[in-house]
Amino acid sequence: MTREYRIAVLGATGAVGTEMVQLLHQRRFPLASLKLLASPQSAGKWLPFGDESLVVQAVSKQALQSADLVLGATGSDVAREWAGMIVEQGAVLIDNSSAFRMDPSVPLVIPEVNPEDLRTHRGIVANPNCSTILMALVVWPLHQHQPLKRLVAATYQAASGAGTPAMTELKEQTRQILDGEPVTKQVFPHPIAFNLFTHNSPIGDNHYCEEEMKMVLETRKIFHQDDLAITATCVRVPVLRAHSEALNIEFHRPFALEEARAILSGAPGLRLIEDWERNYFPMPVDASGEDAVLVGRIRQDISHPNAIEVWLCGDQIRKGAALNAVQIAETLIGEQQ
Amino acid sequence: MTREYRIAVLGATGAVGTEMVQLLHQRRFPLASLKLLASPQSAGKWLPFGDESLVVQAVSKQALQSADLVLGATGSDVAREWAGMIVEQGAVLIDNSSAFRMDPSVPLVIPEVNPEDLRTHRGIVANPNCSTILMALVVWPLHQHQPLKRLVAATYQAASGAGTPAMTELKEQTRQILDGEPVTKQVFPHPIAFNLFTHNSPIGDNHYCEEEMKMVLETRKIFHQDDLAITATCVRVPVLRAHSEALNIEFHRPFALEEARAILSGAPGLRLIEDWERNYFPMPVDASGEDAVLVGRIRQDISHPNAIEVWLCGDQIRKGAALNAVQIAETLIGEQQ
Repeated sequence: MTREYRIAVLGATGAVGTEMVQLLHQRRFPLASLKLLASPQSAGKWLPFGDESLVVQAVSKQALQSADLVLGATGSDVAREWAGMIVEQGAVLIDNSSAFRMDPSVPLVIPEVNPEDLRTHRGIVANPNCSTILMALVVWPLHQHQPLKRLVAATYQAASGAGTPAMTELKEQTRQILDGEPVTKQVFPHPIAFNLFTHNSPIGDNHYCEEEMKMVLETRKIFHQDDLAITATCVRVPVLRAHSEALNIEFHRPFALEEARAILSGAPGLRLIEDWERNYFPMPVDASGEDAVLVGRIRQDISHPNAIEVWLCGDQIRKGAALNAVQIAETLIGEQQ
Repeated sequence: MTREYRIAVLGATGAVGTEMVQLLHQRRFPLASLKLLASPQSAGKWLPFGDESLVVQAVSKQALQSADLVLGATGSDVAREWAGMIVEQGAVLIDNSSAFRMDPSVPLVIPEVNPEDLRTHRGIVANPNCSTILMALVVWPLHQHQPLKRLVAATYQAASGAGTPAMTELKEQTRQILDGEPVTKQVFPHPIAFNLFTHNSPIGDNHYCEEEMKMVLETRKIFHQDDLAITATCVRVPVLRAHSEALNIEFHRPFALEEARAILSGAPGLRLIEDWERNYFPMPVDASGEDAVLVGRIRQDISHPNAIEVWLCGDQIRKGAALNAVQIAETLIGEQQ
């Protein structure tokens, strides 16, 4: 008999939380119970779960007490506030915020890449940053075949990365511009409709923004290689929900294109989309709502004999966040059974 | 006394042609006469020129006969059709199409970079590709200071690169999506609203698309360095009219950031936009309609001691096309006076 688990989704009403709830249903997660928790303002809302509807409760010690597994889809502050309590009662928190990602005692896991790190958890498992997950999923199988020397990434990040309100803002601003009205801003510091800007996360002393450093530091942690040479330019684009990335990947020796193509077309979590004749490659419109990260347009870099260019597109809410967290939960319970 | 010139704009009704006409007025180009030429379908339209209106004529041998200078804003086929006639009659064609750019007998010119190449023209001067101009304007002054070793570019290209109909398509598709209607396509092969795709120009045997190879080959020609190591990933984004580019620029030795910043803030045609505290850097919304290419977010690449990261944003129609062509005309007549 399969064991069933008492699950709580913390931050259930946001873009990622809503997706987690849907994925638990779609993937037939063995649930003994499912609690949808959010801030008191969201309590009383109903969320669909298959044909049923589940009511959202305000997060509280009591509400969390009976959970075996908590999927966290809140910001870092809320994650920090509740993590201690969750761990104390013996539950496991799979947290999508950045609160614990770089904590050496917390595994940072992409199940297709470093599932073995789950064994060392002490009650918290961190879900990596969305751009990191998408990039790592593509780079890891190549890196396994031939070690990476240096990675230059440029991202094209959808509004969804800043949650549902950002997606709403993109749509509202767009309509304002089409109607010739002044553009109003609430979520992003700059207009996003028909515009783009380098990522608005705080900028550090080295002039990289937090999002860029997440791609660098989290990938190093996930790959267990502290000196991995990675640079990134992160950019917000007026796309609703899938991120794209242009990756220039340098190795120590040439990487045969056919080999790269074979590896990426067979790698878990990826789908190769490469129609050179039709000029058809991964696009956000095709990646949205998909589990697989779309990868393609694999080229020999003409500027460097040991580098290849790869293009990817992945649903930022799904594999970039909610799906990866649910997969971590599945891997955890799989190891217990 | 300043000499005045008889100018014809060929393809005057398109996005680039319209901008050329406006620039001739704004920059007080010494005009003896101005003819607006286009296809017979556009003949009879009126275009503003300052407070006046000028009528568009159908292009013909006769219409072109009295011109000293022709600014070409058509596609390659039309440019090829009329170039011979223009040159034969002793006029100079400054052509924005890709028809003659890689012709060894035709100078390919960015006035801030290689004005001296104008001296060798034999009746045709080619205006470089928009993405090339924007990139070269930023890279050239750095390259002058310390030779470039390798350049990895990722572009974020506005709909305007495909002309006015593409800008209209972006707006129409966007409204269709906001209204929940099916998306219709006429210009681009893929939906552009709230989506993006790698550049739709034809793909060559090396898997690079034409737009990417233009950035590589045209920059080599403009810099007079056939072995310049450049790679690019060109991407169309749902922005109306300014292109952005993330440039990873590697040199043979480290390039001091303060030096790079000083060079770029003083270089012709550029404006440094760098407010680290406010996280304010070049954006299409600020670059649109501007003569200067906005550059900023200059960072030491943490993956390579000899590389820096630079971000730019430039009006694709203006410096990326029409302005550069008018500047070529200004430089040409300046040399004659």
